[in-house]
Order: sequence, then C-alpha cells, then structure tokens
Amino acid sequence: MAASPYQQLEEEFRRVHAFRGALALLRWDSAVMMPRGSAEVRGEQLAALETECHAILVSPKVSRLIDRAHANSQSLEDWQLANLREMRRQRDHALATPNSLVARLAKASARAELYWLEARRTNRYADFAPHLAEVLQLIRDRAGLLGQHLGLAPYDALIDEYSPGVTAADIDTLFKSLARRLPTLVREAIDLQAATPSLPITGKFAPAKQRALCLEVLKAVGFPFDRGRVDESEHPFTEGTAGDIRITTRFEAGDPFQGLLGALHETGHAMYDLGLPKEWRDQPVGRNRGMALEGSQSLFIEMLVARSRPFLTYLKPLLEKHYGVSGPEWEVENLYRHLTRVRRGPMRADADELTYPAHILLRYDLEKRLLSGELSVTDLPEAWNEAAQSRLGLRPANDVEGCLQDVHWAVGQFGYFPAYALGSLIAIQLWEKLRAANENLDDEISRGQFEGLFTWLRERVHSAGAKLTVQDLVKEATDRPLSAAPALRYLEAKYLEPR
Amino acid sequence: MAASPYQQLEEEFRRVHAFRGALALLRWDSAVMMPRGSAEVRGEQLAALETECHAILVSPKVSRLIDRAHANSQSLEDWQLANLREMRRQRDHALATPNSLVARLAKASARAELYWLEARRTNRYADFAPHLAEVLQLIRDRAGLLGQHLGLAPYDALIDEYSPGVTAADIDTLFKSLARRLPTLVREAIDLQAATPSLPITGKFAPAKQRALCLEVLKAVGFPFDRGRVDESEHPFTEGTAGDIRITTRFEAGDPFQGLLGALHETGHAMYDLGLPKEWRDQPVGRNRGMALEGSQSLFIEMLVARSRPFLTYLKPLLEKHYGVSGPEWEVENLYRHLTRVRRGPMRADADELTYPAHILLRYDLEKRLLSGELSVTDLPEAWNEAAQSRLGLRPANDVEGCLQDVHWAVGQFGYFPAYALGSLIAIQLWEKLRAANENLDDEISRGQFEGLFTWLRERVHSAGAKLTVQDLVKEATDRPLSAAPALRYLEAKYLEPR
Repeated sequence: MAASPYQQLEEEFRRVHAFRGALALLRWDSAVMMPRGSAEVRGEQLAALETECHAILVSPKVSRLIDRAHANSQSLEDWQLANLREMRRQRDHALATPNSLVARLAKASARAELYWLEARRTNRYADFAPHLAEVLQLIRDRAGLLGQHLGLAPYDALIDEYSPGVTAADIDTLFKSLARRLPTLVREAIDLQAATPSLPITGKFAPAKQRALCLEVLKAVGFPFDRGRVDESEHPFTEGTAGDIRITTRFEAGDPFQGLLGALHETGHAMYDLGLPKEWRDQPVGRNRGMALEGSQSLFIEMLVARSRPFLTYLKPLLEKHYGVSGPEWEVENLYRHLTRVRRGPMRADADELTYPAHILLRYDLEKRLLSGELSVTDLPEAWNEAAQSRLGLRPANDVEGCLQDVHWAVGQFGYFPAYALGSLIAIQLWEKLRAANENLDDEISRGQFEGLFTWLRERVHSAGAKLTVQDLVKEATDRPLSAAPALRYLEAKYLEPR
Repeated sequence: MAASPYQQLEEEFRRVHAFRGALALLRWDSAVMMPRGSAEVRGEQLAALETECHAILVSPKVSRLIDRAHANSQSLEDWQLANLREMRRQRDHALATPNSLVARLAKASARAELYWLEARRTNRYADFAPHLAEVLQLIRDRAGLLGQHLGLAPYDALIDEYSPGVTAADIDTLFKSLARRLPTLVREAIDLQAATPSLPITGKFAPAKQRALCLEVLKAVGFPFDRGRVDESEHPFTEGTAGDIRITTRFEAGDPFQGLLGALHETGHAMYDLGLPKEWRDQPVGRNRGMALEGSQSLFIEMLVARSRPFLTYLKPLLEKHYGVSGPEWEVENLYRHLTRVRRGPMRADADELTYPAHILLRYDLEKRLLSGELSVTDLPEAWNEAAQSRLGLRPANDVEGCLQDVHWAVGQFGYFPAYALGSLIAIQLWEKLRAANENLDDEISRGQFEGLFTWLRERVHSAGAKLTVQDLVKEATDRPLSAAPALRYLEAKYLEPR
C-alpha cells in the first residue's frame, strides 16, 4: 500500500529533524571545539543545511501533502492531528522567509557570534557592532515578512517563534502586576536581608574540582551521560537533539557555585528533552513547546530546586568532599542566605531570582527599540547603560557587563528574551502545584533524590511535547490558567520571610 | 545574465561540499566526542546527509547540466574542464549505487564502528562479527552494481573510489618486483641489525607530556592550529574539510614515540589538505587525488622525514625538554636505530617501513576473499592469523592484534588498503626527487625547518588537486613514471647500510 499523504509528511519531517540534529552538532562544535579560523567554512555548512531545511518546508510537495492530509484528517488520531498542526505552523513560518534570507542570516550570525566571543574577551564592542548591525538588519527584514504572512506585528511574529501563540500584549498583561510589585519587593528584601547578612564565602576553587562536583550532582539529578555531554564554553548553553543532548557551563575559580548552577540550569533543558515523547521524537509534535516552556524547566532547577534549603542540605557534604571546606560559612543556612541574596548586579546570568525579571524587561524594551530602528546599534551600549541605571539601579562598569553579556542578539535571537520572563512565571506555577501534590518533596531533595520530581515534570509537562499550546499545557499541568499570582505569592514568602 | 550550465553545476557541487563538510564533522564527533548511547541518532543524521548528497549527484538536473556543459565545453578553461570531468566521475559513481543502499550503508557502518570500538576493548570479535557481516554484504552489493556500471570487476570498482583509475592489475605489477625482493631484504636487514643492537628505550611517558611534545613538533611542522584540531581517539585518523581539518592520535605511556609518529602521519594528510588549490576548495577538482596520494603524504612525513637522522637531530633536545631524558639511549644514532629497527610484528600501525608492505598485502588478499565470498566473516580471525603467520612470520596473540586492529572494514572501506601500498611507492619516488632537488634538505630538517619541504610538496603535488590522474600527477612531480624502482633503491640503501 502506498504511503498516505500524512505518512509522507512524517517522512519529510524526519529528514528535517535529521538535518536539524546535524545543525545542532555543528553549532555546538562552533562554540566548544572549533578552531577560530574555521568560522567561514562552518558558516557555509550551516547555511547549506538551514537552506535545505527551509527548502523542504517551503516545497510545493509539502504544501500539497499538508492540504491532502487535512482533507483526510478524519482518519488521524489526536497526536497525528497535533503533529499536522505543528507541521503547518513550521511551514507557515518558513514560507514567510525567503530562501536567500535564511542563508544570509545563517552566515551573518555565525560570523557575528565569533566576533561577539572576541569582543567579550577584549571589551571592544565597536569590533562587534557592524556584525550585530548586519544581523539586526536581516532580522528586521525577516520580522516584517513574517508579520505580514502571519498577520502579526513584526515583533509579535518573532516572539511567536520562541513562545508559540504568545504576544507582547499577553506578556505585558502577565507582567503588569509583577512589574508593579517588584520594585518595592526588591527594596524590602534588600533591607530585610541587610539585617541578617550571610558570612562571606571566599577562596579559590579549582575548575577541576568544580567539574568533579558538578558531574556528581548531575549524575544524581539524572543527566543522561550515556546520551549527552557536559562541556565548557564562554556562555552556558544546551544544544543537540533528542538522544544526543549537550550542555555547557563555565567554571570560575573565584565562585564555587556559578559553574554548578549554570550546569543545573542547562540540565533543566536536557531533562525536558529527555522527557519528550519518544515515539514522536523525530516529528514536530514531539519537540519542546517553545522557549517559554524551555525557560520554565531550566529556571525550575536552577532557581526553585537548587536555591532551597533542602537542596543545600544535600549539597553540603558534597561541598566538603570536593572543595575540602568546612566552617560556619558552609552551613546550610548560610549557604541558603548566600544563594538567595538579593543584589543589584549587572549580569543576567548571575542575577538572583527576584531581580531577574528586571534584566528581562531591560532587554525586552531595548530589542523592541532596536527592531523599530528607534535605537541604533552604535547607541546600544549607552542605551543599555542608561536602562540598567533605571531598571537595575546601577551602571555596568564596561560593555562586557553590559550589552556584550548575552549571545542571543549576535545569533539573531530577537524575541527570545521574553520567553525567560514567561518561563519564570510558568516555573513558579508548576512548583506551587508540585509542592501541593507531593508533601515529601523537600525530604526527597534533601536526600539527593530527584526522580519523583522529574517523574512529575515528565508526566505533567515533558510528555506533552508540542501537542498543546503554552497556555493549555500550563493549565493542564497545574489545573489553572497561567498567571503571575503564584510568582508573587512565592517571591513574597521567600524573600520577606522573617529570618 | 543567467548562470551557465557549468556555473549551475558548480553551485550544486558547492552544496555537496558543504554537506560533506558537515558529514566529516559528524564522523569526527562520533569517534572523539559523542556519547555511546547516541549512535542510533547519529546514524540517522549521517544517513540523511549521505542520502542528500547522493540525491544531488543522481538528480536528473545534474545529469542534464553535465550534458549541457559538455556541449559547451569549448568555452571552459583547463581547470573547469578537469572539474567537469571530476563532477561526471562522482555522478557515475553515485548513479551506480541506489539511494536505499547508501542510507543502509551509512547506518550499518555507524553501528559497526561502535561495535568495533567495543570489541577492540574487550577482544570479543564475535560481538562485532554480525555487524561486519552486515556491512560486507552491503559493500558486496555495491561493488557488483558499481562494477557493472563502470565496466570494471567488482573489486576494481571499489579500488577506483580510493585510487582513481588504478586497478588491482596495476597494483600487482607495481608490487611484483617489490614482493620478490622484500622477503630476502627483510631477512638481511634483521641479520645486519642484530649485529648493531640499539640500547633499549624504556620508562613511562605521561600522555600529558607526550601531548605537549607533539604539539610543539606539529607547530614547527606547520600544522594549521587556527584551522584545525589535534585530539585523541582509539585509532588515529584525519577528518574534516578544507579549512577545518582535524587529526587524532593515541598516546600510550609505555611508548614515547607512537603518539607523535601517529600525529605526524595524520599531519601529512592535513598538510595535503592545506595545500590544495584554495580557489577550487569547494569543487571536485579542488579535492585530493584519492587515497593513494593521501597515503603518500602521510607516509612521507611519518616514514621518510620523521625516521631520519636529521629529524632526530631536531627532535633530541625536545625529548630532553619534555620527557626530561638523557643518556646514551637518547643519542641520535641510537634513536635512529630504534626507530628504523626492522621487526616482525602483528600491528600495521606500528609496522616499520620495510615490513609494512606485507601488512598491506595480507589485507589486500583477505578483503578480496571476503568480497568474493570465498572467506566468511566468521572465519576471518583464523584466516588472518594464518596469513600473518605466512606473510609476517608470526601469529597474533589475539584478535585485537589481528583482524580487529583496523577500523576500515567496519566502516565499509574495502578497496582502501591497496592505496597505502601505492602511497608508499609514491612517497619514496617523491622523496628521491626532492632530495635530488634540494641538497640542503637534511640541514633544514635537522634545524626543524619544514617550510622548504612543504613548499615543494605543495607546488609539485598538493596544488594540483584532482586535476591530473594519479599516474600523471606522479609523473609531473617526479619527471618519470610511477615505479617500484625508487622504493627498492631507497630501502636497500637505508636497511643494508653498513653501521
């Protein structure tokens, strides 16, 4: 019997999935292994593969098959219907971006990433700026075309790529109450914490020791070392594909926690990937539900699990073992105070959970202005510094602590940052639900048992793949609509707690 | 103006080149970085990319363009004509292998390589055998189809992939005089050397120190670290693409030279790649002239350059520096005796220059018998051991020292081994010519100056790309036809030299 239109579509998307897996590895290699002088060649490879994926999605064959599969959709099961919807969504996004633009974007962002790495090293934003400008112009073209095609404002069209179905207006609504309460909450928390200072944690912690600690913790957490890798790179990231997931982190001798927490953050992504429905792993519906959900999973581990007394109870003997440390500053309560310290700082990646949203709002505003043309790439450093002054209450010492700190824009990821904010709200709403459902959670975490936690996340979140919209997924997982209320409850309880 | 058929062909082959570059990286990663459990997923990616390359080559579009470009070939320059010939050659090879076979081969060989790595570790050939059998059957199918299409015997068709235009009969002719003289020459050399034993070189040499020494030597040799990497893997290899070349080696604490010589061997490949004509780097004519030429370049460095008194004069102070060694056994003459010691041994990779051809003849015979079905995969270990007894004068202690020592067959490379033998003859013929042309060569090498040497190779060999046939390339480079006579002269002079 000949393959049905739907089955033929699955075959086409299986090819796309394989090429995307290859792309993921090429990108991972670019950041972790590749010699500097190979950027041009790598850019050509990335461009050829992106172009090929794009060509499949926009091919008349795929559009014809989608139409025919829709005409026969009564014979499809729920998952297949959702898969068909995701196929159409990917096709629509691709159709809205012409082939030549895809290839130019791939090349320009590969180049810009290299220059970003260099500029971060030398603190010379000016060397990076022309490459960012090139990427921005291409993204602007893309946003216009995408918006036209999808009937969305240009910026909303970009957001849709990362947080399917979510608009800037949705984010504004979700964030309004949070934005109103946060400034006073930050101030109150800082005042309160001033009364209970933590003992300073100082010293040098050899990267090799940090790596060993990190690997032991990741093993307990359940990171799939047989189908994944943990490496080091300038900026922590997760790359790879279902069945070959690769995370990176960065160890700094002066900070015993940053590398570990970075790795735990990325492990949240890796565990999401691991929990996706295996039978759909090479199909659109079997992938993650966009970056907002991804963000929720990484923040869940880094912020909610790892910066808790139960987790630190588990961690304490491991710190003693690997770092050979002891003393009052290494007691659980002091570690907890240290790691939940609210501090106005310039770096998003180092930000505490309470000031983190401010970092996102800053980027959210600036990228809107960059895209609209209201802000030029040349003026970005100064605009960043001013925004930091007003939103974070400080001025970055240099561009490395300012507009050079994130890779996202260099690689064309405009519309991505809001997903972090959304992810934070989702994470807390999931956390509140999980705690209500499992009264032994703290106990399990303090004993280094993470299986129950991940089983719950797998059942409630991961296993849904891309079957539901973001909002429906959160509602099914937590039995109520996504809102900022759980986040406010959680942050007030955690940061205004009498100590 | 619309692109000409020839220009359109260049564009198609540029895509093939980019996909092959991606394939090269995926393969490198499989052997050096990839977690074990990801083999299945990687196999799918390799298969999808191989299938895509294949689909381009066999597409009606490419065949049509080739015909039209031929019809207008009077407007093409020499290089373009040669490029067109190479395009046609690749197309013919591809047309002879159906798509499904390409994909099955890619998957089966990815799997077999993993099992080979494991079997090498455990010395359990039986665990590997079914996977080798699967690859062999697929290769047999391929050889039949290829031979039919190209009008060649099945085995000749496979050889043609690695040594374009060369047949088994050519190799037999070239090797006849060598095969006749070698057995007595080996015996005479062993007897002669018995009278002048070298002082034993023993001790443990930490891999980290070996790595540091290796990197310093490779830097002097000119390995392009800005466009390449040096890593470690089970079996040394070169992978990658023009502009991102990656070699591996293996350091063993008990042997201070093996890792270095392995790296120098692979560096021969890397320097060939580096010297290919840049303006043609993404076209068929800009690639290497097959594995026989590749083999000549690696053996040139490992055997002719590195195992010479001038090179050891250069190396001696580096050994002192990195290994902290001194004493009579580390004097140049003793090192030379040590590294040119003729010894009957089981491992090809460890073989000296004089017994090396016997290792190739052994494989050459066995792979012919495996392909014809005269020898079964199950019987391979015993057949190997018997052949080793008669050709090498010894019986391997186990399969790791026998039929498990090389990766080639696992990954489907039947017809490859003869290229090593051919490569050895070519290397020596080039060496004889270079020495006659540059009387300062020894002097330069002993001072660690390799630029003159590589400039000569670049001008005479590398820069020709795939413009000429193997035989014409050797003739142009050395001003005489390829023969075994220089090899016999060289080996007699070197190994029957009165010491």
